[in-house]
This record gives sequence, C-alpha cells and structure tokens, in this order.
Amino acid sequence: MKTPVTVLGLGAMGTALARAFLAAGHPTTVWNRTPGRSPELDSLGANRAATAADAIAASPLVVVCLLVDDTVRSTLDGLELTGKTVANLTNSTPGQARATAEWVTTAGAQYLDGGIMAVPAMIGGPAAFIFYSGAQEAFEQYSGDLSALASPAYVGTDAGLAALHDIALLSAMYGMFGGAQHALALMAAAEVPAVPFTEQFLVPWLTAMLTSLHGMAGDLDNGPADTAGSNLAMQAAAYENLVTTAEAQGVNPMLLVPMGELLRNAVASGAGDQDLSALVGLLRTPAG
Amino acid sequence: MKTPVTVLGLGAMGTALARAFLAAGHPTTVWNRTPGRSPELDSLGANRAATAADAIAASPLVVVCLLVDDTVRSTLDGLELTGKTVANLTNSTPGQARATAEWVTTAGAQYLDGGIMAVPAMIGGPAAFIFYSGAQEAFEQYSGDLSALASPAYVGTDAGLAALHDIALLSAMYGMFGGAQHALALMAAAEVPAVPFTEQFLVPWLTAMLTSLHGMAGDLDNGPADTAGSNLAMQAAAYENLVTTAEAQGVNPMLLVPMGELLRNAVASGAGDQDLSALVGLLRTPAG
Repeated sequence: MKTPVTVLGLGAMGTALARAFLAAGHPTTVWNRTPGRSPELDSLGANRAATAADAIAASPLVVVCLLVDDTVRSTLDGLELTGKTVANLTNSTPGQARATAEWVTTAGAQYLDGGIMAVPAMIGGPAAFIFYSGAQEAFEQYSGDLSALASPAYVGTDAGLAALHDIALLSAMYGMFGGAQHALALMAAAEVPAVPFTEQFLVPWLTAMLTSLHGMAGDLDNGPADTAGSNLAMQAAAYENLVTTAEAQGVNPMLLVPMGELLRNAVASGAGDQDLSALVGLLRTPAG
Repeated sequence: MKTPVTVLGLGAMGTALARAFLAAGHPTTVWNRTPGRSPELDSLGANRAATAADAIAASPLVVVCLLVDDTVRSTLDGLELTGKTVANLTNSTPGQARATAEWVTTAGAQYLDGGIMAVPAMIGGPAAFIFYSGAQEAFEQYSGDLSALASPAYVGTDAGLAALHDIALLSAMYGMFGGAQHALALMAAAEVPAVPFTEQFLVPWLTAMLTSLHGMAGDLDNGPADTAGSNLAMQAAAYENLVTTAEAQGVNPMLLVPMGELLRNAVASGAGDQDLSALVGLLRTPAG
C-alpha cells in the first residue's frame, strides 16, 4: 500500500495536491476549516476528516496548504504531532518557515517547508516542481510520495531555504516580466503588434540572453573573469537612452529607473570597469 | 564582384563590421577620424581612405558606425551623398534616427537605420542580428550584402523603428538581468553558491516562464483571454512577500519596488481581476 497522506486545506492548491495524491493511489485524508469544500474529492476516494486532529491522526505524512502562515499555527497548535512529518506548503517567508519549523519540531514532528513553483493546474504534471527544506531524513523518507505532487527539489536543512528559493525565482520572474512589459508598451506606443514582435524577437532574444546568466553566476562564485561585453561605465551611459526613449514614446519608465540608479551607483563606487555581476554585490549593501 | 562597401568609424564595432565585410569578400573601404586605427584591416585587404568624402565616393553602400549620433551629422554634412545608400548603425534613439533619415534623404541618399543586437565579437557569427528600418527598396537591394555582418531584420519604413526595437529588447534584457541579480543577491546573502542555483533553478525557471510571454502578447493583440493563473489583486498581495523577504535577508529591494507600485496602481485603477498583460496598458499612461 502506498503511504497514507493527509492534506490540510482545500483551497485551489490544496485541492490540486489532494487530487494528485489520489491519482497516484495514496490513501488520502482531507480536511478543510469550512466543511464540504471540493466535493469532487469524495468521489475520487478521499477520506474526509471531521477535525484537523482526526486528519493528522490518519497519516504519517501531513501536507499543509492553508491560505496564510498565521493559519498554520492556529490550525495545528495543541494537536498531537508526535512522530508525524509535517510538509508545510503554505506560502511563507523564510523567517515564517524557520519559526514554524521550530514549534513543529518542538511538538515532536519532523518539519519540511515547501515552496510550490506551479499554479494549481500544473500540479501532478511534468513542469511543476516544489522546493523543500528542513529535516533531511524526512525528505529522504517521503520524497517518493511527494513526487506525486511535483518534482521535489531539496535545498537544505535550514527550513527557510525553500521559501527563499521560491521568492528568489518569483523575484527574477517579475523582473523578466517587467522588462517584457516595458518592451511591449514601447511597441504598443508605436502600433507594432505584440504577437509577431514577441515570437520573432522578444522571446528568442531573452532566451539567448539567459545564457549569459551562467557567466554571471560563475563570476560570483569564482571571481570576475574578463569583461566580455561592455563594462558598467559604458552600460550606465548607454542606459540613459532607454529611459529617454521611453519618455519620448509616451511610456512610463518607472520599471527601468532603479537599474539606471544601480548602474550609476556602481560607477560612483568605483566599479565602472567591472561587469554586470558586480551589481549583485551592490544590492547587498543597505539602501542609501 | 561583390558590392563595394564603405565603413565609416573604426571603433570596436566598426572594425568588426569591416572585418566581416572583408571576410565575405567585399571590396571594403574604411575611414576613421583618427588615422591608422585598426591596422590589421590593412593586411586583410581594406582600402583605407584619407577623407570621409573619399570613403563615401568609393562605394554605393556606406555603413556608418560612429560613437554617438552627433558625430554622424558632423561627419557627413556637406559631403556628396547623391545615389548612395547610407546604413547608419551608430547607437541612436528613434527620434535621432528619424532626424538623420530626414537630412540624409534630403541630401539625395537612401537611408537605413540599424540597431545592432550583438557585441563586436559576435559580428559575422550566427547569433548576431541587426534591426533595420527606413528605405525598404534600399534594404531589399542590400540585405544580401548586409547579411555578411549579421542576420538582417527589417522592421518598417519609419526610420525610428530599428532603434525602437533595439531599445525595447535591451530594456527587456535589463529587466531580466535585474530580476536575476536580485535573485542571486538573495542566494548570496544565504551563502548559497550561484552556479548550481543558476544552472538547476534560475535559468530553467526563467526559460519556462518565457513561454507565458506568448500568452501576454496574444492578450494585447486580441483582448484578454481567461486569467489562467492568479489575477493582479492576488499578485499584488503576494508581491509584498518579495519585498519584505529581500529586506529581511539584507538585500536592497530597489529593483523590485516599481513592479509592486505598478501592481498596486493596477488594482487601484480597477484592473485587479485582470492579468499581467494589463500592466502594459498601465505603462502607457503618464507618470503620476
């Protein structure tokens, strides 16, 4: 028999998680504060628990997917967790994850924190993955079971690391989306259709530029190599064209402004002869 | 015989352009304000002109690659351009390109403006491409010759469109780099090495997220489809975690701040139930 699992919280994501466990053949107990949520789970074979305590008692692996971090503590506090593994997939910050790890562990459970890199429709599919951090033994014991949800990626014993990886990737995604949205606004202002521009130029260009992130990462780990392209002083000067062109085209340059400031700060701090990887260190100095 | 070509300006990029023409077998005349630049071109067979006027007289196709836009006019003004095609690859804004198109055309030449999407080392290689806009006939006549430099992409008769496309892609690139740099700063603050994070997570994630730009572009051209992921109101709320986590990790959130502002503006303007493509329209309203 496959490992019995419990899912606490049947919002869109919790429901998707429960469905994926059921589809993989796990005896699956579900609970939601408001009863009767996601009735389709019943016909798929879910065991619906009347209380969170009953739900936790039913399985060694308890997956928590509530709306916000506060609800995790208010739901689990005082319940019998001894010997359980709690995999908390509720959205949280690294600090929240570390705090939850502490009291869950004190209550006698092993704690895994998770960051889901997918929307609910992707759960159980090939493109989804979930970051996990915290108790390594628990991860090793249950990673096969958790694979029913999405590819599991374990990133370290510090329980905050899954949320940190999650937030880092989301931050990078919004940066990319912001750049793309600015580009599309420039095109819209010139009445250039978005679809052919995106297919022919924007996506191929960004795909090609993505490869330079490997060099940037190498510089960070191993010290800077030769500046292959133009140095930061040249880039800071050329960057002004991006802002003035946006303004001339009637596009708000708000998304571009901080990178210009960062480039100018880099030059002012004497890093004008370095390359883009130097900006990473500059972001780690306190805001001025 | 291949079309004789002239290259005005032998900085790093102009020199790379001249080398690519020579490598493709074009009779190539070069000129630089400071004489004797890039002496290796002489042994490759370049014909070095003493004056810009001599250089222009030598070829029907004149490629201009000077340091800044001002220099283009000060170099060409008053010289005999009748019947020539001037392909100006000097960095410029759309407005500068349109102004140059006007006086070059008045002087009797056909004008193409170009935006080079490559560093000098990439010229003549497979990954480089150059946007062209302006005189369509001239482009059709010379696109085969210009292919020696990089893949040519013609984007319209408005001479400003090449620079606009160039600047749009650079803007998008800096957005993506900024997002990646922020993510790498978060990782560095947690002492997570950059290379494995970039290889295993950052680049694959951004590559996967790039595909959603096609949907965003489709929404812009065809009107919004169903919101597949989370709407802007949900994203605006979740985005706060990205900023507070950066601050908690000692990373300056400066690159993230304007997107948060844009998301909040979107919700305040009643677009909370729409998706990310709605931000493009919001960027086209004047700065508040």
